[in-house]
Amino acid sequence: MLVVMKTGASPEQISRVLEAISVLDLTPHPMPGATRTAIGITGNTGAVDSRQLEVLDGVKECIRVTKPFKLASREMHPADTALDLKQGKIGPDTFTVIAGPCSVENEAMILRTSEFLVQNGIRFLRAGAFKPRTSPYAFQGMGLEGLKILQKAREKTGIGIVTELMDTEHAAAFEDAVDIIQIGTRNMQNFSLLKRVGQTRKPVLLKRGMSATLEDWLMAAEYIMAGGNYQVILCERGVRTFSDHSRNTLDLSVIPPAKALSHLPIFVDPSHGTGKRAYVPAMSLAALASGADGLIIEAHPEPDRALSDGAQSLDFKGLQALMASLRQMAPLLGRKMS
Amino acid sequence: MLVVMKTGASPEQISRVLEAISVLDLTPHPMPGATRTAIGITGNTGAVDSRQLEVLDGVKECIRVTKPFKLASREMHPADTALDLKQGKIGPDTFTVIAGPCSVENEAMILRTSEFLVQNGIRFLRAGAFKPRTSPYAFQGMGLEGLKILQKAREKTGIGIVTELMDTEHAAAFEDAVDIIQIGTRNMQNFSLLKRVGQTRKPVLLKRGMSATLEDWLMAAEYIMAGGNYQVILCERGVRTFSDHSRNTLDLSVIPPAKALSHLPIFVDPSHGTGKRAYVPAMSLAALASGADGLIIEAHPEPDRALSDGAQSLDFKGLQALMASLRQMAPLLGRKMS
Amino acid sequence: MLVVMKTGASPEQISRVLEAISVLDLTPHPMPGATRTAIGITGNTGAVDSRQLEVLDGVKECIRVTKPFKLASREMHPADTALDLKQGKIGPDTFTVIAGPCSVENEAMILRTSEFLVQNGIRFLRAGAFKPRTSPYAFQGMGLEGLKILQKAREKTGIGIVTELMDTEHAAAFEDAVDIIQIGTRNMQNFSLLKRVGQTRKPVLLKRGMSATLEDWLMAAEYIMAGGNYQVILCERGVRTFSDHSRNTLDLSVIPPAKALSHLPIFVDPSHGTGKRAYVPAMSLAALASGADGLIIEAHPEPDRALSDGAQSLDFKGLQALMASLRQMAPLLGRKMS
Amino acid sequence: MLVVMKTGASPEQISRVLEAISVLDLTPHPMPGATRTAIGITGNTGAVDSRQLEVLDGVKECIRVTKPFKLASREMHPADTALDLKQGKIGPDTFTVIAGPCSVENEAMILRTSEFLVQNGIRFLRAGAFKPRTSPYAFQGMGLEGLKILQKAREKTGIGIVTELMDTEHAAAFEDAVDIIQIGTRNMQNFSLLKRVGQTRKPVLLKRGMSATLEDWLMAAEYIMAGGNYQVILCERGVRTFSDHSRNTLDLSVIPPAKALSHLPIFVDPSHGTGKRAYVPAMSLAALASGADGLIIEAHPEPDRALSDGAQSLDFKGLQALMASLRQMAPLLGRKMS
Repeated sequence: MLVVMKTGASPEQISRVLEAISVLDLTPHPMPGATRTAIGITGNTGAVDSRQLEVLDGVKECIRVTKPFKLASREMHPADTALDLKQGKIGPDTFTVIAGPCSVENEAMILRTSEFLVQNGIRFLRAGAFKPRTSPYAFQGMGLEGLKILQKAREKTGIGIVTELMDTEHAAAFEDAVDIIQIGTRNMQNFSLLKRVGQTRKPVLLKRGMSATLEDWLMAAEYIMAGGNYQVILCERGVRTFSDHSRNTLDLSVIPPAKALSHLPIFVDPSHGTGKRAYVPAMSLAALASGADGLIIEAHPEPDRALSDGAQSLDFKGLQALMASLRQMAPLLGRKMS
Repeated sequence: MLVVMKTGASPEQISRVLEAISVLDLTPHPMPGATRTAIGITGNTGAVDSRQLEVLDGVKECIRVTKPFKLASREMHPADTALDLKQGKIGPDTFTVIAGPCSVENEAMILRTSEFLVQNGIRFLRAGAFKPRTSPYAFQGMGLEGLKILQKAREKTGIGIVTELMDTEHAAAFEDAVDIIQIGTRNMQNFSLLKRVGQTRKPVLLKRGMSATLEDWLMAAEYIMAGGNYQVILCERGVRTFSDHSRNTLDLSVIPPAKALSHLPIFVDPSHGTGKRAYVPAMSLAALASGADGLIIEAHPEPDRALSDGAQSLDFKGLQALMASLRQMAPLLGRKMS
Repeated sequence: MLVVMKTGASPEQISRVLEAISVLDLTPHPMPGATRTAIGITGNTGAVDSRQLEVLDGVKECIRVTKPFKLASREMHPADTALDLKQGKIGPDTFTVIAGPCSVENEAMILRTSEFLVQNGIRFLRAGAFKPRTSPYAFQGMGLEGLKILQKAREKTGIGIVTELMDTEHAAAFEDAVDIIQIGTRNMQNFSLLKRVGQTRKPVLLKRGMSATLEDWLMAAEYIMAGGNYQVILCERGVRTFSDHSRNTLDLSVIPPAKALSHLPIFVDPSHGTGKRAYVPAMSLAALASGADGLIIEAHPEPDRALSDGAQSLDFKGLQALMASLRQMAPLLGRKMS
Repeated sequence: MLVVMKTGASPEQISRVLEAISVLDLTPHPMPGATRTAIGITGNTGAVDSRQLEVLDGVKECIRVTKPFKLASREMHPADTALDLKQGKIGPDTFTVIAGPCSVENEAMILRTSEFLVQNGIRFLRAGAFKPRTSPYAFQGMGLEGLKILQKAREKTGIGIVTELMDTEHAAAFEDAVDIIQIGTRNMQNFSLLKRVGQTRKPVLLKRGMSATLEDWLMAAEYIMAGGNYQVILCERGVRTFSDHSRNTLDLSVIPPAKALSHLPIFVDPSHGTGKRAYVPAMSLAALASGADGLIIEAHPEPDRALSDGAQSLDFKGLQALMASLRQMAPLLGRKMS
């Protein structure tokens, strides 16, 4: 349920509504807006008599929400969500590029990449310290040591760090070390992990599961938000279909419906989506045109020597050329780039 | 196999090679290029000794083609194919919009729509005279009477006609009446129909089957081309996946690999692809950005009164707004619009 | 709509109802049952006032049918459909095996196979005279000459002929030459062809499209039945999914819901479904256990020399072993085998 | 790599080979067979010179394994794996039924169910204490209290407990409380969890991910086995496809290829696979016929009052009827049931 406060409702009136909701054994989620505050309610609202809340001072109306996801729904939060990070704003009217290698390979390479990105106006570095590999015998990432390298790069260059968290055990370490916590496609319904990142106050980039419907995906976002962490970025990265022309089927068609149903920002990963470097630029431009708020792209100083996923990584020259094209097109779509 | 002639090979030399190929019980397909002529060979080329052809005057080399599709492959025909129709060019450096209602409903509406399109710089009308309907009890289209209405619209306005052919029986009638013959998704592997349109000399817009791989699709194009009709336009219109956020899953990710493997122009149908009017503009821009050569869009003067598919049709105002956006973006992608 | 006649309604009463339906510009489909007759009505029944029919003598009630398919639905025809062919019964309480090579290769091989099948209690031969091949350059079947070979085999051995019809042009020839007309997976929504076989009075084996939902499939059956040909056999042959462990994903899970929604017999093609000989026996037994009414299996005297699909064909010894297992299991499932 | 020892190689000879492998910084996995012992080697075997091992006494040969999964592959372990649990054998020549409610609802119901199962020769109870629910607001299971109820049921009736582990945190508690640890479909590639259960010495029932290929699935088993826990049971439970006739598409066609590639036992979950009670019996019999080693079925004393998944649960009478059918059919397939 959603309680909409009157324009000009006082902080005290809002507090009293929050309290009344708690007394009913439900969880209130206050969402201040430009002109008025709305309060989302989660928990078993089936039996709640909305009249108990409608009679309180400052309440305009109570709206029953029909979607199974609530905090993630546009119905409850009509305006697009913007995230304010130290490195800049993410969300409506902007277009953000996150780039970097598949995995942290060594300190020199991460520093070199970070400096290149910053010089080219890219404010976020992606690089895996912990890697979810299909094979137990494949390189599993540098682990905590990799995390330290990423922190060094941040100290030296100011770049924001985006990296994947694979288990609850390392959540605390990530909270200190990273700017955006990534949840990978294979863990999109690892509910224990979603609940754990719901406890942090770091933005979470939530990749779509390989066979997740839009509703599944928004419900996964809801798990994070139900814990009080409202800073969720959705990220399309390709789904599993019968199609064999690329590694996955990058589903740009999900972006308009995701925008219609949810207020959360949505990014696209054209590197995993296509699995092939040559297809990344076209799909990046298409992502921008389709309404996405940003990209997460694999880029590597020497793709052909990458420890993993080199075939889908751009080299630095390719990334620069793509940035130039994006910068040309973004203003036509009402988006600013840094 | 592909025979590449020397730059400057004479018409006589080329003729002698064509003859030599026919003598071997194979079919030669001459493909003149900017600097030299190549000759594709189809038929059972397994046992051919290429030396028989390499010794002929004017022959530069013989190349064995490894893809199962030959005439449709970029390997055999490196330059992008352009189609020259009376209404204008289709293919590289251009971006073509085909628009119109799902079905021919009556003469007045088709005339009104054609005039609107022409006034807005749209040179091709789509409208079904024969409709492939899932139910035998649903409106099956106006049939030959509908075809006559389309011809009238062409006479009055000069607009090009694009409409679906569903069986071999009507192929001759279509050859006179239409400018581009459409083959629908359900008939993409109706091989009898493909062979029949391979006998015509009209451009064919070949929609991708609902679960066709890229190779299946190019092989279907090959069926048409093997008959000597090289004017094939591929058209992505959404595939069947687990995803339920839209009627079909519009697979823009197929465009870069299709362009890599084939020289044929490729269009996108965002109306069937999404099934929802609100999603059509974003996916149209994304199609342009991803490298498509054109769009086929459902538009109707009064979508809410359409006999079929109204929910996915733009109204005229919506189509004008979309055309304006496309015209803004096209030059950035190196494409001219009429 | 469905008109249910009273038990004991006279032929005259039934005739008068049929006439009344025709007068309303609708099509009646009488379906005599064990205890009473029901009359299906197709056409635009939206505006029909059922009271016009309910007042006629002998009418028990009129039922509005809610599924888009009517003649194919169990709602309209509660009892399982049985087909009575010269070679034996197909349908409930029986289990029928159709076997034979992918394509007619020559007369000797077809005769040899037919004799083997008859000796082993198999009453139907499958073999393609016209072959739907993905490549225009692949062997397309022996055509009408192949059809003649099949007729000879029937004359000599009495075996029933099951073979694929690919276009309306050959429908008349098939009506004479074959016992069951097969419609292939690629033509499941070739509506012109479905309408044409709806005009014949030969049983039609309708393969499921590669990405057809159960409703799509039953609607395709409805196209045939709407023409007055009620002898349709459904045939599951594998669908397209992300799974790559076999050529297609044989969907046995469709059988119980198909049986729940429709009265039509349903067969399974484990050869195309799996694409691999070694997996055919297990999936054949599973098809029987899941409720299927029969199998269509590829078998070849020398699979490794087959012109097509040898990898998925059983040899004669393998087919005999499978028949022995099926005969052991069938009685436990309440089914007789010949 | 796989080291095959000679028939009659002595324990000392085997020990020396194990030691030599460890010296190379690789991990040996001894696998005693009926006539000889084989030793699987994992780790980066790329650079190993097999001659170093072939010269050792008792070694017959070294075989390079070409599949990415090793311990799970039949290549390395030709004989079917059998698990010996206190409650009985699982694997070849047997057919095992696990049954019970979706979730632990209360003690009385679990005891009542366990007694019913034991009386009907069913030796394993399934019931979720921790439930992976799509919505954060849905019933998440009784948790550790539920685990205690399951332990009580085991003490009173001797029944084996099968229940889902959702995070590493509870792994130790499960090791004491359960007989078979279930890993759910959403966690099939939760690699941290797989590694953790690889450290236990309890059998693991590994459900197939909703869009996992057979190779993905066997690689997930490999993660568990690489930790030294070789007791893995695969479990097919339906995958995501375009098909909408059932909750998921139960893929029985994966069973023969899984058996061909791997020696591990494989179960089927027809309840989640179909999502509908009425379809469970037919798909259970089909699973047995297709070569599965067992079933995991939802059954509930009063399905229509179940807290979750009632629509797909059999009632006790339905379960008894199914057991009777399975017991009739099992001997024909060379399988004993308890």
